[in-house]
Order: sequence, then C-alpha cells, then structure tokens
Amino acid sequence: MTKLGIALMGTGRMAHVYGPKINAHPGLTLEVVFNPRIASAQKVSQEYGGRPMDDLDRVLADPAVDAVVIATPTNTHVEYIIAAAKAGKPIYCEKPLDQTLERVDQCLTMLDAHPVPFMLGFNRRFDPDNSALQQAVAAGEIGRLNMLMSTSREPSPPPMEYVRASGGYFVDATIHDIDLMCWIAGERPIEVFSHGSCVFNPEIGAEGDFDLTMTQMKMPSGAIIHINNSRQCAYGFDQRVEAFGTDGLLQTVNHRDDPLMRWSATHTEARTPLKHFFLERYDASFYHALDEFHGAVTQGRAPSASQSDGRAALAIALACAGSAKTGKAVAPDY
Amino acid sequence: MTKLGIALMGTGRMAHVYGPKINAHPGLTLEVVFNPRIASAQKVSQEYGGRPMDDLDRVLADPAVDAVVIATPTNTHVEYIIAAAKAGKPIYCEKPLDQTLERVDQCLTMLDAHPVPFMLGFNRRFDPDNSALQQAVAAGEIGRLNMLMSTSREPSPPPMEYVRASGGYFVDATIHDIDLMCWIAGERPIEVFSHGSCVFNPEIGAEGDFDLTMTQMKMPSGAIIHINNSRQCAYGFDQRVEAFGTDGLLQTVNHRDDPLMRWSATHTEARTPLKHFFLERYDASFYHALDEFHGAVTQGRAPSASQSDGRAALAIALACAGSAKTGKAVAPDY
Amino acid sequence: MTKLGIALMGTGRMAHVYGPKINAHPGLTLEVVFNPRIASAQKVSQEYGGRPMDDLDRVLADPAVDAVVIATPTNTHVEYIIAAAKAGKPIYCEKPLDQTLERVDQCLTMLDAHPVPFMLGFNRRFDPDNSALQQAVAAGEIGRLNMLMSTSREPSPPPMEYVRASGGYFVDATIHDIDLMCWIAGERPIEVFSHGSCVFNPEIGAEGDFDLTMTQMKMPSGAIIHINNSRQCAYGFDQRVEAFGTDGLLQTVNHRDDPLMRWSATHTEARTPLKHFFLERYDASFYHALDEFHGAVTQGRAPSASQSDGRAALAIALACAGSAKTGKAVAPDY
Amino acid sequence: MTKLGIALMGTGRMAHVYGPKINAHPGLTLEVVFNPRIASAQKVSQEYGGRPMDDLDRVLADPAVDAVVIATPTNTHVEYIIAAAKAGKPIYCEKPLDQTLERVDQCLTMLDAHPVPFMLGFNRRFDPDNSALQQAVAAGEIGRLNMLMSTSREPSPPPMEYVRASGGYFVDATIHDIDLMCWIAGERPIEVFSHGSCVFNPEIGAEGDFDLTMTQMKMPSGAIIHINNSRQCAYGFDQRVEAFGTDGLLQTVNHRDDPLMRWSATHTEARTPLKHFFLERYDASFYHALDEFHGAVTQGRAPSASQSDGRAALAIALACAGSAKTGKAVAPDY
Repeated sequence: MTKLGIALMGTGRMAHVYGPKINAHPGLTLEVVFNPRIASAQKVSQEYGGRPMDDLDRVLADPAVDAVVIATPTNTHVEYIIAAAKAGKPIYCEKPLDQTLERVDQCLTMLDAHPVPFMLGFNRRFDPDNSALQQAVAAGEIGRLNMLMSTSREPSPPPMEYVRASGGYFVDATIHDIDLMCWIAGERPIEVFSHGSCVFNPEIGAEGDFDLTMTQMKMPSGAIIHINNSRQCAYGFDQRVEAFGTDGLLQTVNHRDDPLMRWSATHTEARTPLKHFFLERYDASFYHALDEFHGAVTQGRAPSASQSDGRAALAIALACAGSAKTGKAVAPDY
Repeated sequence: MTKLGIALMGTGRMAHVYGPKINAHPGLTLEVVFNPRIASAQKVSQEYGGRPMDDLDRVLADPAVDAVVIATPTNTHVEYIIAAAKAGKPIYCEKPLDQTLERVDQCLTMLDAHPVPFMLGFNRRFDPDNSALQQAVAAGEIGRLNMLMSTSREPSPPPMEYVRASGGYFVDATIHDIDLMCWIAGERPIEVFSHGSCVFNPEIGAEGDFDLTMTQMKMPSGAIIHINNSRQCAYGFDQRVEAFGTDGLLQTVNHRDDPLMRWSATHTEARTPLKHFFLERYDASFYHALDEFHGAVTQGRAPSASQSDGRAALAIALACAGSAKTGKAVAPDY
Repeated sequence: MTKLGIALMGTGRMAHVYGPKINAHPGLTLEVVFNPRIASAQKVSQEYGGRPMDDLDRVLADPAVDAVVIATPTNTHVEYIIAAAKAGKPIYCEKPLDQTLERVDQCLTMLDAHPVPFMLGFNRRFDPDNSALQQAVAAGEIGRLNMLMSTSREPSPPPMEYVRASGGYFVDATIHDIDLMCWIAGERPIEVFSHGSCVFNPEIGAEGDFDLTMTQMKMPSGAIIHINNSRQCAYGFDQRVEAFGTDGLLQTVNHRDDPLMRWSATHTEARTPLKHFFLERYDASFYHALDEFHGAVTQGRAPSASQSDGRAALAIALACAGSAKTGKAVAPDY
Repeated sequence: MTKLGIALMGTGRMAHVYGPKINAHPGLTLEVVFNPRIASAQKVSQEYGGRPMDDLDRVLADPAVDAVVIATPTNTHVEYIIAAAKAGKPIYCEKPLDQTLERVDQCLTMLDAHPVPFMLGFNRRFDPDNSALQQAVAAGEIGRLNMLMSTSREPSPPPMEYVRASGGYFVDATIHDIDLMCWIAGERPIEVFSHGSCVFNPEIGAEGDFDLTMTQMKMPSGAIIHINNSRQCAYGFDQRVEAFGTDGLLQTVNHRDDPLMRWSATHTEARTPLKHFFLERYDASFYHALDEFHGAVTQGRAPSASQSDGRAALAIALACAGSAKTGKAVAPDY
C-alpha cells in the first residue's frame, strides 16, 4: 500500500478524532502536527506522534509531507486550503469549507488555479449504514427514489459560545443532512423551504438562531426530501434515514450503546437511551473518509465529497436559513 | 343504554362501512336506509336491516329516526346536512363537509341557525392507535410537543374517475393527516408549505393533480408538522405517526395482516407486506366514531370532530394545494 | 349457513366465554343454558339468551338442541359427554377431557360405542397466530421441522383453591403447549423429560406442585420440542412459539395491549407490559374453535382436536409430571 | 500499563485470531511464536511479529516471555500447560482443556503443584453482549434468576474430519453454552438431560454424533437452563441468550452484517441473513478475554474462567453426551 505522509493541521477536537484514525490507517503516516502555537502542536504530537511544527511554510515544504488533513477552526479553512493548494499538496479538509459563499468562491477559484486532489470531510457519507443505503439506492434496489428523509436530533444544545460561532443551525448541522440527502439522491434541490423554532434554549433564539428546524426540498427528478433537526433530544442522539422508492423502502436504524432488550413490570422489548453523540456514533466514518482520501490520492481518482459538493451544501444550507427567516421558498445560489 | 334510531343516508361504499357498525353498536338501531333511488335503498336494507325509503322529507319526519348518518357522495353532504338540521336531527356526516369553502361556509351558517349535535367522520381520530397517541401527548407524557409527523402511503392509485372527482390529493387524502395532526397538537397551523410531484401515474399529473406530496406546517406554539403522502406504495398501506416532544418520542407502528416473523436464507426478522387498505386498517375506527357520536348525542356534549374542525381541515388542505401550485407558503383561510 | 341449536352446559367462567361467541356466530343459536341449579342457568340465560334448564334428560331430548357445548367443571366433563353421546348429540367440550387416563379411556370407549361428532376445545390451535404458523409449517415453508419451542408464562399464580383442583401444573397448563406442539409437528413424542421447581409461591410447592417447569420431548422424526412454563411473569402473559426448520425459522410475537412505541430519557423503542391474560389474548380463538366445530358438524368432517388428541395430550402431560417427580425420561402411555 | 511479553503457542486458525489481538492490546507484546515445525512458526511470525521458535524449553526459559497463550490443537493443550506451569509462566489456554476428564484431572493436579495464573479461553463470557447480560443479572436487575436459555445455531456443519476430532457436538460446541449459562447463573447443574438427533448430515450420525441437540439442566437454586444447538441454520449464525427472572426478562439479540431494514413487495421490516460466523460475531470477545488475562496477571487476581470452570464445563458436556446416548438424566462428574 502506497504510504502518504500526513501533516495534521490543527490541534482541537477534530484533530483528536483524525490523529488516531491516521495512525490506524496502514497507508497513512502522521509526519507533522501543525499549530501556530507550538505548545499545542507539541501536546498533540506527544499523544499521536508526528513532529510538532508552527511554521506553515516549512510544513508545506517538508518533503515527508505528502498531503494535509485540515482540522483547524472553520474560519481558517480557506487560508490553509489555499496555502496547501499553492504548495501542490493534496488536501483533506474537515467540513465546512467556510460559512460564507464569497470566501468559498475565492477558495474554489484558487483550487481551479492550483489543482490538487481535494476532499471535504462530509464524514456521514462514509458511515457504513449511510453508505449501505446509498449503495442500495444506487443499485436500484427500491427503483426510482421518490422520498428521502433524515432525522437528526442531538442530545443537548451546545454551549452558547459554540452556537454564536456556528454560522447558525442550518449551516452548522443541517448541512450534514443536506449533503447526505443530495449524495444519496444523486441530485441537488431546485428549491428549499424551512421552518425554524426556538423551543429549548431561549438564548439561542435571542441570537436569531433556531434549535428546532424542519426542511423540505424539491429535486429536479420530482423526488422530495425531508430533514428534521433538533438541538435537544431526551432519549439521545437520534439518527435515522429513510429512502422511499417505487419498489420499496430502506431504513437505517439507530445504533445501540447497550446490547440488551429488557422486559419488566414497567416496559417490554425496551432498549436503553442512546448515550453516545456523534464522535461515538460516527467513529468508523472518519476512518473510512480518510481511506477514501488515501485511495483517491494514491489511485489518481476524484474523491467522493469534492469542493463543489461543499459549495452546494453551503448554498443549500444558506437557502434554508433564508427560507426560515423570510417564510419563503428559496432557490439555492449554486 | 339510550337507543338512537338511525337513518343511514346513502348506499355506496361508505354506507357498507357504517351499516354493520350501526348494527354492532348496542345504542344504535338502523331504522331507515335512504336513497332517492328506492332500489338501491332496498338492496342495502336487505343486507343490514332498516326500512328502505326514497323520500327525504318523510325520512326526516319519521318519529323512529333520532339521528342521521350521512354517507352519500361528497357533493350532496351539505344538502342533507341542511335538511337534517332544519328537521332538528343530530347529524353524523362522513368527511369532508364539501370540497369548497364557500359551500362549507353556507353550511356552517345554516348549522348556526339550526343548531343540532353535529359530528364529522374524521375516523382516524378514533383509531385506537392514534387515539392512544393523542391521549399520551395530551397527558404530557412527552412534555411539550415539538414535532409531529405523519406518513400515509396508499397501496396503489385510485381509478382516474375517482381522482377527477376527488378535489385533488390534498383535499381527498392529506386532509385526514391534517385533521389528525391538528387534533393531536391541539392547535392549527399559521402557515403551510407543500411540494407535489407526479411520479406514478402521468394521467394524474395531466389532471393537474399530484400522486406524491410532502407538507410542512408551522404551529402557533412553535411546533412543526410534517406530512408525507403517496398514492402508491410497493409494500402496502403504510400508516405511521411520530410525536417528538421535549421529554421523549411516541410512535404508532403499522398493523400486520400476518402474525409471523420469518427467517430464511433470504431474509431475517421479516414480516409480510401490508396487504390491507384503509377499510381493514381503520375498521375499528368507524365503530368508535359512531360510539363518540352516540355518546355526544345521548349525553348532550360536543362531539370530537365538529363542523369547524371540518372547515379548518379543508382550509388547510386548500392552502397545501395552493402552496404546491404556487411554490409559496400559504396561510390557511380560517 | 346451516344453523345449529346449541345447549350450553355450565354457567361458570368458560360459559361466559362461549356464550357471546355462540351469539356472534351466524351458524349457531343459543337454545338452552343448562345448570342443575336453575338459578345459575337463569342468570346466564338472561345475559346471553337461550332457555334456562336444569334437567339434563330434557335438554338432550329437546328437538331445538342440535349440539352441546360443555363448559362445566372438568370433573363433570366425562359424565356430560357420555350423556350427550348416548343422545346422539354432537359435542364440543372444553379441555381437558378429564384429569385421569382411566376416566378418559372410559369416555373414549363410550364414544366408540355411540359415535357422534366430537371436538375438544384446544383453543390455542385456533388462535390466528398459531394457526398461521401451523399452516406455514405444513406448507413446507421452513422445510423439515427440526425444533419447536413454546414459551408460555402467566402473569401471576392462580388462587390455591384453583391450584389444588387443577391436576397439577403440567395437566392444567402445559397440556395446552403439548397439544399445540404436537399439532404443529404433526406427530407425538416418544419420550418426555421435565424439570419442575417452585420459586414463586411456596404453598404451591407444599402441595407437591410446581410453578416453574421446563419440558423437552423427542419426536419420532428426530425433531426436538421445548416448552417452558411459569406461573408468574413480571411483564405479563408471555406467549411465543418458535419453529426451526431446515429452511428457516418462524416466530409468533406477543400481542400488544398498547399500540405505542415509546422513547424517553429512561428507555427507547419500549412497549408497555402485556396486561392481558388468556381470555383477552386468545379471545378470537374461541370463536374460531366454535366455527371449526360448526363446520365439522354441518359438513360431516372430523374436527381438528379430537378426543384422541385429548387423550394423547393428557398422557404426555402426565408423563411430564411423572418425569419431573422421578427425574427420569418417561414414555407417554398412549 | 505493565507490559507482558507473550509466547504464542501454535500457528493454526486460533493463532491467527490471537496474533492480531495480542498486537492490538497495549499491555501485551508478541515476543515468540512457537511451533515444533519452525517453518510454520516463521510464517505466523512474519505476519504478526515475534521471534519464531521451535524449542519448547527455550521458549519457556526466554526472559522476554512473561506468559504463554496456548492456541495449539486440543490434544496438546495439557502438555503445554504442564510445561508452562513448571516453568512458572502464567497461562492463557484456548478452550477446552482436553476432551477427557482423566487428562484434565492430571492437568489440574499439576497446576495445583505448580500454581501459576491460569485462564481458559471461554471467549463468549467476554463478548460485550453476554457480559452486559451477566452483569445485569448479577446486579439483580431481574431479581432471582429462574430460567436461562441459549440458542446457538451454526450456519453449516463442519467438515467430517473436524467432526471426528471434535469429541462430539456436546464437547465441541455445547460446552460454550454450558460455560456461559453456568457463569451467568453463578452455579452449576445438579443434573442434565439431553436429546440429540442427526437431521442434516447422515455422516455425522454414522459417527455416533449429533447435529441437532437440546439440553435441559436443573440448578441447585431451582433455576432451569435450556440450551439448543444446531450444526446447520439456513439464515446464518443464530446466537441468542434469554434470562428470565422474578422481576423481568433480558435478551441479547443477533448482530447484523447489514445495517438496513428493508420493505418491498415481498417483505417488510426485513433484515438480511446473518452471514458471519463465530470469528466475526465474537471478534471483540477475544480481545476482551486477553485483556482479562492481562489484568489478572498484572494485578495478581484470579481470572474469570479458571481451570476448574473448564473441568466443570467438560464434566457437564460429557454428562449431556451420556444423557443423549442413554436417554437418562445424568449428574455431572464434578
């Protein structure tokens, strides 16, 4: 297996997700951990290996670095993408590209000028359940796809600090469902309509954001998409996809922390609540995403989840946000 | 139990549903079967009892007739309601009141002028599963209600003749889900947004109608409603309701024609497709609806599913139809 | 449909089960309710119809009585069977025939001498779930049958008075599973082995009886049967059958009092406990059993569940009881 | 974490299971791969690391070897156990100890004389599902345990060569269920009763062995155990445990190769067959078993699954085999 030396850009939460996955992959070697603050780089480097570095130019000039995995704060993605593209390094970038279409378009222009293999980390595509559903749909198992629905409810609202920097619930979270639905459907919506409410945390509403949303999208083929999201969910992290086609229905089911089915004087056939959150639920997806990146780079093929997928998902998410504010259906700005 | 003598108005498909249920109910007696064509009345009368009659005035003047059950074609509902109201007879009327708000409003004006106990046959409220869900929501079992979704997919499209007279898919079918959602939520939408496609039978599209629709509704409380409907469904009559609240989730599950769970070389834990359609699936609901009517009339209380519920459901269904045509969110004309 | 006039023998709990079912069946008419104490007969008669009578000879001589349904205490079954057989009346008798093989054999001898249509009320064969499973097995859906298992657990132990008169747990309850298993398998065991414990109510153990038993039976074909019974079950009346064949597995699932699936902070996909007991769970089976009887009598064919099935089930149940006492495998005394 | 250098004894199928798990465990280092034929040792060594060795004495004298993992053919287990015990090395031995109680007793005598930490590889105890069930039972979640049942059906019969060397179906396979049931119950049976048939492969019957068995065991507490085994199963590797207690029921459910639930014109809520076999199904259990061994050795505590557990399970399995041959209940020779 061709080995790729990786520079891991960033040392935050997502760096702690990618570090171990890079180490677990037989075709990837963690060569560098980068952070402008060298102390942070050293800390992560001690945990997962790789040389700590704080100078971006030297990282990108390092002959051991074959590719970069960008796991920095969202507002720095474009900067690192452009630098890596100029240096000719293949790029895996945690989603989203950016929170504004303007910056994304600048980024896409630069990537056109400096073409390198590029993959956006829409990890849910690489979740084995979602991936099996996409394959079954693509294989025609349910005939023509007519409806596609995604339920995605989080256990509890994030801290307000996170909410404020998130770009809004649609751009922060619904974007995952949007990309997944478009990828499974194999097409992008003509128009979207969204409703948003604030029912769990009034502070979120005070920021002009929502913690409960529902979205409906019409596809060119006539297929209709439904997405529902909630920032809070009493029974845990609820993740279900349902694809309804002319010949049948496919459903993914929630994963279980606890293997037992329980019967008692108060309930029967019961399972415990879903205690995990996305890092546990989608743990495997990060590995499979890196594997897709490795395969694409080493075999010279286009990776699943390109920069244009990222732009489209953002355009759709912004259209949802616009719809929820204005009460009108919105055509995404592709 | 106080006995009510019933005049069954109409001899079509729904009369064959109500005939046996009237006979099964200990508080109801089938006194008269009415149809302007006496031969039709005689035929149904032979099957379920009651005297065949073809003269509306004599029916309504008959001292044995305590109440009427209207199961005639939709476009005659208002006429019979007005006649029965003038005669002071309590009325149970199969849904919908009518397909136009104008006629419904005339009807409501007459009912105001001639007040009698009136109940509209929104039978799905009386399905034991839906009714258990409504009670659990009302009892606060899941806290504040945040989302409510209804999946309602029919096995196969009706004949074109039926489609043409139906008032459109929203007014014909979605109206059931609309009434059910409003009843469970305990409130009516501020605005609705619907998408419609024609993917199963192009003839339906040629009539300007849809055979695949999805609807989203915003409630005054902030709760958001989702309804999806399909005129065709490979695996049968799919009927599921899901209520998501602050403290949990409630789901109704599909009924089974076949009790067995099957494991073999091709599948495991499999059930057979849902062979039944609405008459079988909601069989019990018609009995419970008549029981509600009997109780309301004999105990002098307002029945569930009033004429104003009927008007609201129609207004919402028409708003859905308007939204699907115009691509805009529509506020129902309450 | 050929009408059969029925004399209902007995006025206890089972008479209250059969009374309404006789009335519900279009081919049966309740002509007579018999009890040697006329007051009891009058009471039941007032509830379900039929003439109250206290003179057995006059009942059996009554020209309106075409057949008898025996629902008297077990220790009087044989007496009434013999009388009805002598009078040439077709007989439906609630199970068991009797608690001793000696009395059963006397009864069978009399039935041989006075042949009349005879059916034993092994109602669980007529439960739609069990019946669907038997038909699927008979139709070869799972190939050769290799294992058959029955789980039958009751909500709570019966009163001691009932236990003392029951003939023991195997003869009282396991006999149902035994008949069902033999009927589905289409063969009777060569030998049985049973374990019994008393874990719920020490008074039951003090009577030499069990409240927890497990039974294993070897069939001539090589198929192996498992039955487990419990007099107490925290989550309700647990009734499951599993048939394992060369080509697959069939399972019946528990019925639900409550239609909802519940998700909350304490459990997910939960159903409520099974509140019903056998009268509710097997309600439909009594109707179907009477229908089988009606069909057999009016069409002149042998009913399912004959007197020899009754004798065999008793012989097997007694073998189980013997095995549990002696710790040895026992060949039933067929 | 204290590191243990491991000598992996054996290079067959189970060595390929333990090799990767030793490498995956942060507290274990694969130091030596032993096989009397050095070429075999070299091959496995190239795959998983460790030095290839063919001289037992040198392996056991090697200072880098802190413990041995025995994964050799069953009939050599005792020899290597004794050698390792004499050398004072902690031992993890794949089950069973041996196929005869005589040899096992010799082994236990030697282990008494040369006490070293010893653990038998009853891996199913360490499967997370079984382990969760055992913990829930031990924690009193279902009150007193009354029944315990294990369903264990293999996809297809092994080659006859394997069958002939297996010691018979009870000793080869049922022994897993036996150990698991005794471990969960926390006690060992007073007596066992087994039925065996040969229904899948007549060659197995010709060897005097069975391919379909059922076993019932009575525990000192009054609890009753059921085990059913089949060498063939059309829908795959069926592994289910059910624990019935005074306060409720716990069930483990089958694992899924395929995450989707499928609805179509031929079936609803269907899952695909279980394509995996024990290496995939119980993959995690081998890691957890080695972790238990590591913890026991490094913390100086007795491991779960001792040599006396191994002896008891064999005595019970032999009692089952004896029972199936003689048709009598058998008290195990503890």
